[in-house]
Amino acid sequence: MITVCLLGAGNIATHIYKAIKVADSLEVVQWYNRTLSSLAPYKNEVATTDKIKDLVEADLYILAVSDDAISEVSKSLPFNNRLVAHTSGSVSIHDLNQKNQRAVFYPLQSFSKNLDVDFSKVPICIEVLEKANIKIFKAIGTALGCKTYKINTEQRQTLHLSAVFVNNFTNQLYRIAHEISDAKSINFDILKPLIQETARKVEVLSPYMAQTGPAKRNDKKTIKRHLKQLENEEHKAIYEMLTASIQKTHGVTNKR
Amino acid sequence: MITVCLLGAGNIATHIYKAIKVADSLEVVQWYNRTLSSLAPYKNEVATTDKIKDLVEADLYILAVSDDAISEVSKSLPFNNRLVAHTSGSVSIHDLNQKNQRAVFYPLQSFSKNLDVDFSKVPICIEVLEKANIKIFKAIGTALGCKTYKINTEQRQTLHLSAVFVNNFTNQLYRIAHEISDAKSINFDILKPLIQETARKVEVLSPYMAQTGPAKRNDKKTIKRHLKQLENEEHKAIYEMLTASIQKTHGVTNKR
Ligand SMILES: NC(=O)c1ccc[n+]([C@@H]2O[C@H](COP(=O)([O-])OP(=O)(O)OC[C@H]3O[C@@H](n4cnc5c(N)ncnc54)[C@H](OP(=O)(O)O)[C@@H]3O)[C@@H](O)[C@H]2O)c1
Ligand SMILES: NC(=O)c1ccc[n+]([C@@H]2O[C@H](COP(=O)([O-])OP(=O)(O)OC[C@H]3O[C@@H](n4cnc5c(N)ncnc54)[C@H](OP(=O)(O)O)[C@@H]3O)[C@@H](O)[C@H]2O)c1
Repeated sequence: MITVCLLGAGNIATHIYKAIKVADSLEVVQWYNRTLSSLAPYKNEVATTDKIKDLVEADLYILAVSDDAISEVSKSLPFNNRLVAHTSGSVSIHDLNQKNQRAVFYPLQSFSKNLDVDFSKVPICIEVLEKANIKIFKAIGTALGCKTYKINTEQRQTLHLSAVFVNNFTNQLYRIAHEISDAKSINFDILKPLIQETARKVEVLSPYMAQTGPAKRNDKKTIKRHLKQLENEEHKAIYEMLTASIQKTHGVTNKR
Repeated sequence: MITVCLLGAGNIATHIYKAIKVADSLEVVQWYNRTLSSLAPYKNEVATTDKIKDLVEADLYILAVSDDAISEVSKSLPFNNRLVAHTSGSVSIHDLNQKNQRAVFYPLQSFSKNLDVDFSKVPICIEVLEKANIKIFKAIGTALGCKTYKINTEQRQTLHLSAVFVNNFTNQLYRIAHEISDAKSINFDILKPLIQETARKVEVLSPYMAQTGPAKRNDKKTIKRHLKQLENEEHKAIYEMLTASIQKTHGVTNKR
């Protein structure tokens, strides 16, 4: 049995708690949050506390607190030389206080409080300072049914950056399509199967191979008409920039 | 039984053929392509031809040919006053020769020859000149298990434009993430669950509600670090433009 002490009661902490709860050979022995009331729904099934001094012994302490709080909370831990991991994609491993053995347990997924996530499909990126600690994280990954990936600091920060492209920026393209179609009284639902298929395609093809459309075909007539249709200057600029990007990727030489 | 004569043997024609084949109350009575050899795999199950003069009678003629060929092929049809539809998101309904009753049967999805698509999940956008013709398309939609949407020309062209944003441009963001992560020897597979989840989220939340991340939070420290990480000027420009777009959408006032 691997014992875990969980700190924080936000999105990540809650999803980790639920995933550990149903996993064999893993146990949350204590759940800390500075605001105890957030843990009230769980107080009959796990030991909860809002007193950092009362933390019990565990194989791993997971600090699933806001990026800005990681340094401070890690400093306030009332013990030394135990294994402590934060869950952030961007915060340095060195922000964790050096009195303990430091690690990062970064689940690369977008979690919201009210949307269930199949945790076994979440890739867990692991960074450690002492190589020997990889073993326990691999065991936790296995118990959760997750794939784990050993990465270094630069790779984790690159993944965090890449995640902005495939998550936040992609979602903004959905938003722009929503605005454009709303303006013509079109039900956004019509676009949803295409959104799903676009995501599904890169499961089997590289994004390079999956590309289609007027930019790649260099269909100037369509591109011109699309630019004319766009009423918003900002949308027009995004259309032009991403069209140029596709054409560069696919070696379309284009003197317009 | 609604009888259909199919023209063209590309992506769309092939997917439509397969969908009709398994549908009750629909039948492809003849399949035309200028190159007969493309139809060879089907010649034992359906009447095929490469002679436009030999087209038989049918309730509907679907012209699933290249955008540029629609006008010419519709002109060469050897009959009048029958129902003829093209399948393009961008070509005008008036490009169809006026000797027949004109319509558009636009399946809003991205089809590739080698990737199966669940046709029943494809929204079919219908445009007609004579209102009475809507009925047969609704019946075809029902037989295929598809949702059909009656739209006008402007709406169809807006959907085609929106599709470029959610499909081609989104796929280019995946491509950029692939480039960025490849450069640091990161397996692109790590990002795939996030790609799926981003698409899945807009099934239940509007893109506005689904947004998260440094741009929306106006997390200047992270944005600055990301821009520093980006080595490619074009990627940097896209990052800045989409960050500004998110901030505008979410009313982040930002004097950097
Ligand atoms: N959300 C995601 O999709 C996601 C994905 C991967 C990684 N992460 C990382 O996971 C970590 C937690 O994110 P989250 O989304 O779970 O955040 P969250 O929902 O905002 O929750 C933040 C938690 O941190 C606690 N906290 C904040 N400041 C604190 C302080 N000064 N002292 C003690 N506790 C403090 C909060 O306590 P109160 O309840 O008392 O406010 C709360 O329990 C972050 O490092 C984040 O970068 C998030
Ligand atoms: N692919 C998609 O995802 C998609 C989605 C929605 C709508 N559409 C629309 O569906 C239509 C067909 O697209 P597609 O992807 O199926 O194209 P495709 O795979 O390239 O197939 C084009 C077909 O048109 C025929 N054709 C081309 N020029 C012709 C001519 N001058 N005379 C007679 N036949 C000609 C070709 O015949 P050969 O076999 O002899 O070359 C081929 O059968 C287009 O209007 C397109 O805009 C496509």
